[in-house]
Amino acid sequence: MALDPVLARIDKDLAPATERLLELLRIPSISTDPAYKAECERAADWLVEDLRSIGFEAEKRATPGHPMVVAHADGPGPHVMFYGHYDVQPVDPLDLWDNPPFEPEVQDTPAGKVIRGRGAADDKGQMMTFVEACRAWKAEHGSLPCRISMFFEGEEESGSPSLVPFMRENAEELRADIALICDTGMFGGRTPGIVTMLRGLLGEELTITGPSKDLHSGMFGGLAMNPIRVLARIIASLHDETGRVTVPGFYDGVPELPDEIRRQWDGLNFDVSGFLGDVGLSRPAGEEGRTPLEMLWSRPTCEVNGISGGYEGDGFKTVLPSKATAKISFRLVGQQDPHAIRASFREMVQSMLPPDCSVSFKDHGASGGSQMATSHPAFEQARRALSDEWPETAAYIGCGGSIPIAGYFKDLLDTDAMLIGFGRDDDQIHSPNEKYDMESFHKGTRSWARVLDALSRG
Amino acid sequence: MALDPVLARIDKDLAPATERLLELLRIPSISTDPAYKAECERAADWLVEDLRSIGFEAEKRATPGHPMVVAHADGPGPHVMFYGHYDVQPVDPLDLWDNPPFEPEVQDTPAGKVIRGRGAADDKGQMMTFVEACRAWKAEHGSLPCRISMFFEGEEESGSPSLVPFMRENAEELRADIALICDTGMFGGRTPGIVTMLRGLLGEELTITGPSKDLHSGMFGGLAMNPIRVLARIIASLHDETGRVTVPGFYDGVPELPDEIRRQWDGLNFDVSGFLGDVGLSRPAGEEGRTPLEMLWSRPTCEVNGISGGYEGDGFKTVLPSKATAKISFRLVGQQDPHAIRASFREMVQSMLPPDCSVSFKDHGASGGSQMATSHPAFEQARRALSDEWPETAAYIGCGGSIPIAGYFKDLLDTDAMLIGFGRDDDQIHSPNEKYDMESFHKGTRSWARVLDALSRG
Repeated sequence: MALDPVLARIDKDLAPATERLLELLRIPSISTDPAYKAECERAADWLVEDLRSIGFEAEKRATPGHPMVVAHADGPGPHVMFYGHYDVQPVDPLDLWDNPPFEPEVQDTPAGKVIRGRGAADDKGQMMTFVEACRAWKAEHGSLPCRISMFFEGEEESGSPSLVPFMRENAEELRADIALICDTGMFGGRTPGIVTMLRGLLGEELTITGPSKDLHSGMFGGLAMNPIRVLARIIASLHDETGRVTVPGFYDGVPELPDEIRRQWDGLNFDVSGFLGDVGLSRPAGEEGRTPLEMLWSRPTCEVNGISGGYEGDGFKTVLPSKATAKISFRLVGQQDPHAIRASFREMVQSMLPPDCSVSFKDHGASGGSQMATSHPAFEQARRALSDEWPETAAYIGCGGSIPIAGYFKDLLDTDAMLIGFGRDDDQIHSPNEKYDMESFHKGTRSWARVLDALSRG
Repeated sequence: MALDPVLARIDKDLAPATERLLELLRIPSISTDPAYKAECERAADWLVEDLRSIGFEAEKRATPGHPMVVAHADGPGPHVMFYGHYDVQPVDPLDLWDNPPFEPEVQDTPAGKVIRGRGAADDKGQMMTFVEACRAWKAEHGSLPCRISMFFEGEEESGSPSLVPFMRENAEELRADIALICDTGMFGGRTPGIVTMLRGLLGEELTITGPSKDLHSGMFGGLAMNPIRVLARIIASLHDETGRVTVPGFYDGVPELPDEIRRQWDGLNFDVSGFLGDVGLSRPAGEEGRTPLEMLWSRPTCEVNGISGGYEGDGFKTVLPSKATAKISFRLVGQQDPHAIRASFREMVQSMLPPDCSVSFKDHGASGGSQMATSHPAFEQARRALSDEWPETAAYIGCGGSIPIAGYFKDLLDTDAMLIGFGRDDDQIHSPNEKYDMESFHKGTRSWARVLDALSRG
């Protein structure tokens, strides 16, 4: 089956495709807020109906939370499984939106047309690029180039509580030759990227207790131990002078970057000044001797996400507090073992406690880093297909964030996952005035048409 | 005029005196929070009216902040000026109070009756011991044994911004033969104390700014500088391993304890285990090689009174924050210069900032330590009067807290100050469930009746 007429069909049908996306964006499917439960159902129903209209066997599947949508259609090539999510982030603060978040519209901007509204980029717009590519194949040739399944969840923005149980229960049905995920971005807005490295996340909260109650710093100061001082000393000791994390064994299982990937990343000419300049910074502040992209994508980190203790209001209060708390997260890569690191971190903290202080910990989740199997033939096939569509050659990139679904496909279904996305750094996902570039939507759809073609040819 | 009938009158009138104190305690005169401005006015009005009812010429005097109360009444003896403060500390965390902080009540406890509520000990209860002593003298004899003035401020818990200007402007009116201050404690709950050494207080707030806005720790973590880490490093470096403060020049002007005072303090047999045990601690945590009473009374300190930054709510948020803030105080002694130390501290912080971080400071007041003039004859007169009232002989003691007013009386008005108070270590001032022992209130009132008698006799 020829690719060119499919691409031409996508060009010709951009207006109705955009209308369909706007229709989906009008459904306020906020998963984290129970008030929007019926809207999540409505978004799932909309997708089932749309997929059936292009010949998929599609079903809404109940879970203890919001429903999944699962769809299948036959085709000659390998079996691909596409994952996306139809739920969206909350919209507050509402007053910072220029237009109502669920009254999406196409807007002209100096940088080109954009589709503006909650979910435009994360993830409804990205999800529909794949659906529209399938529609164009079907419309032009009456059939699809591969056997295609789709799997959409409605809880991605609220911690995906039903995802792993559902994948376990439906493992046979969801297993495929390759999983495709469209929830990431391009590199620098011009270079299509296939994410091959995702950092994991380990969340810890620790509370140091010194005196059994808040004290007056005049009456007790100098004699009683201050837990803020203890906490500060622990945090200060988590990095050495070169920016390395000091938790014993932390770097066990951290791989060095393969030369091939290093060359590719060097070739990306990452504009670190621009990236940092946008947030008021000028210098990379990570590990000495590492490039900025390594710091972001392939090196593990330790960050303090929050700290509190004592009097935090206006003015001054001479309290010597009983407790001080910090939330600390570690981004993990390669074969780092989150559970071993949690244990080592806790032991290190215990060993730094002075007499009369105690510590309690709270576990805020643990997932390891993941490394995609670029040796799978689909990766090079997809990379060539993307390079045909865009002005720059596609690159294997990393992603500093954590997208656990990729690991679940591998661990639960033994299915390699490939993350391809068309988002841009300025899409303002999770923030007011979220948008998705019309170019991302249009060329994203064309990209998937090309990738399906390439996968079908092998 | 005979003392005994005055003491008997105090015993007889304890119930109505307690009722008056409870009335004053019901006024939530929190000076640091602008929301309570009208309540501070109300507390001042209440005092003016009460003092007028016992024959004082009393007035509320406006300041740029909360008003002062000034009152005068004639008498034959020397001119004594009594200082107290009607403002109280904030009450958070509110959920740790067993009763609402401004619904005070008299409670029976295993250790005796207590008056429970915010301000019961600091300072409304202590202040009213003096007022009630005057009331008893007046009720019994129709006149006072000395010429008595009173001077109450409403900003003691928020750095006393109006105090020095007011004292300068009204120096003639406020000068006296001796100033009496009731805002300190007994030693060990049995030994009445005259405080002859007070630490000063230097308050600083610093805010470290890294990125210009809060960032996603996955997208930026490892590359962008985290201001909480910077702040932790600064705090951790403020003490060396022996517990000494590392701010350059900090110990300039810190005197060694005179042998005479050291002997008196050694004689007090300070129960450090009991003192620390009451607050869940077991070991002195101050400078190595110093006795516990030195740590509390005669050595300077540095404490962190509050810290905050990033996400502090329930659960977890992977934010890399833009800002982190700490409130830090120094207790000063001897000839330490608060302004020089502030400058040195700020310079030290600046020197520790990594590139891309900036710091802003807020000044929360500065006062040096002070040393009372025990050669003034009033000291020995008062010491004998106190020893008559209590089971143990009164002692000259130190006080870890900062009561700058004592220094102001000397420096601005050339009036020596004498600090006598009836607080106990377990009064929980500045904390939830503050209380004042009924015995302190009762015998404190009797003590002042005795002191006034002793001063009038010379």
